[in-house]
Amino acid sequence: MKKKSIAIDMDGVLADTEYQYLSYYEKETGKKLLKTVFHNVPELEVLPDGLVYKYLHTPGFFRDLPVMEGAVEAVKALQEQYEVYIVSAAMEFPLSLYEKKEWLAEHFPFIHWHNIIFCGDKSIIDTDFMIDDYCKNLDFCKGKPILFTAGHNASVTHHQRANNWKEVLQLLL
Amino acid sequence: MKKKSIAIDMDGVLADTEYQYLSYYEKETGKKLLKTVFHNVPELEVLPDGLVYKYLHTPGFFRDLPVMEGAVEAVKALQEQYEVYIVSAAMEFPLSLYEKKEWLAEHFPFIHWHNIIFCGDKSIIDTDFMIDDYCKNLDFCKGKPILFTAGHNASVTHHQRANNWKEVLQLLL
Repeated sequence: MKKKSIAIDMDGVLADTEYQYLSYYEKETGKKLLKTVFHNVPELEVLPDGLVYKYLHTPGFFRDLPVMEGAVEAVKALQEQYEVYIVSAAMEFPLSLYEKKEWLAEHFPFIHWHNIIFCGDKSIIDTDFMIDDYCKNLDFCKGKPILFTAGHNASVTHHQRANNWKEVLQLLL
Repeated sequence: MKKKSIAIDMDGVLADTEYQYLSYYEKETGKKLLKTVFHNVPELEVLPDGLVYKYLHTPGFFRDLPVMEGAVEAVKALQEQYEVYIVSAAMEFPLSLYEKKEWLAEHFPFIHWHNIIFCGDKSIIDTDFMIDDYCKNLDFCKGKPILFTAGHNASVTHHQRANNWKEVLQLLL
C-alpha cells in the first residue's frame, strides 16, 4: 500500500530560526533577549530596525541554523510510516537555496533529494499532511494541517497544534 | 473564478538544453553535431565519455542556457488565462538552484517567486496541466499532461504532444 505523505516545513519547524535571530542579535548588540519576545509578534517585526530582515539576507544565516529539538529522530520515525517531503518556501531568499540544501544534507542526510521541494507559495503542494508554522501555508493546504508552535502563531486556534516534535509523533504515529 | 493552473518544466521546455550540450561539446572537441543525435537516445547517453553529466555539473551551464524559441511570449500569453508555475527538478544539481533562479529572473522577470518551485520528483505537485519533456514526471501527474517534444522522447506515444511553444498555445488557448 502506498504510504501517506507529509510535507514538513524547514524554518521554525525543522530549524530553530527564533534561536538564530536572538543569537545574531546578541552578537550585534550585546543584548540578550528571551524567546518570549516572539510571543504574538509578527516574525519580521520582532527585532528593531528591520534586523530580522537583515539577518535573513545575511550569508550563512540558513546554513548555520540549529536543528529544532527532537526533529532528526522524529523525521526518521515518521519515515518508517510515511513518505516524508521537506517543503520550504525558500524562493523569497535566493541565496538561501544552496545553504538550505547543504543544511539538509548535513542534518537530515537520510532524506533523498527526490523528496526536497523549495517553493514560493505552497498552494500546489498536495500531501496528506502538512506541518508548518504559518497559516498562510496551512489554511489552503490540500491535506490535514498541523500547526507547529512558534511565537508568532501563539494566538492561532483554528488548526490542530503540535507544540514540539514529541507532540507531532503523538499525533501521527 | 479561480484560474486553472499549469506547471511548466524548465530544462528542455523553457530552456534549450540540447543546444547547450552541443555548444559545450563543440567548444571542447571542435566537433559540430546536429540535434538529430538526440533522437531516441537517453539524454545522459547522447554524448560520449559521460560528457552530458559533466556539462550538467559545470558552473554556468544552467545560467547561460538559451531560451527555447517562443517560450517567453507563450508563457506571457498563458499567464493571461492561467496561473502559471515553473516547476523544475533542480534538486539533483544543487549548484543549479541559484543559477536557475537567476536565469528565470533574467528571461522571465514577469514570473513571481511565489510561482517558482524547485523540486526532486514532481509527484506531489498538483496543477490542472503539466508541460514536461519527461514521462517520469507526466505519467503520474495529477492534472492533464502535455509532452513537450525533445529528442529523447521521440518515440513516446501515450501523452498529448506539443512539438513547440506554438503548439502549446494551440492546445491551451
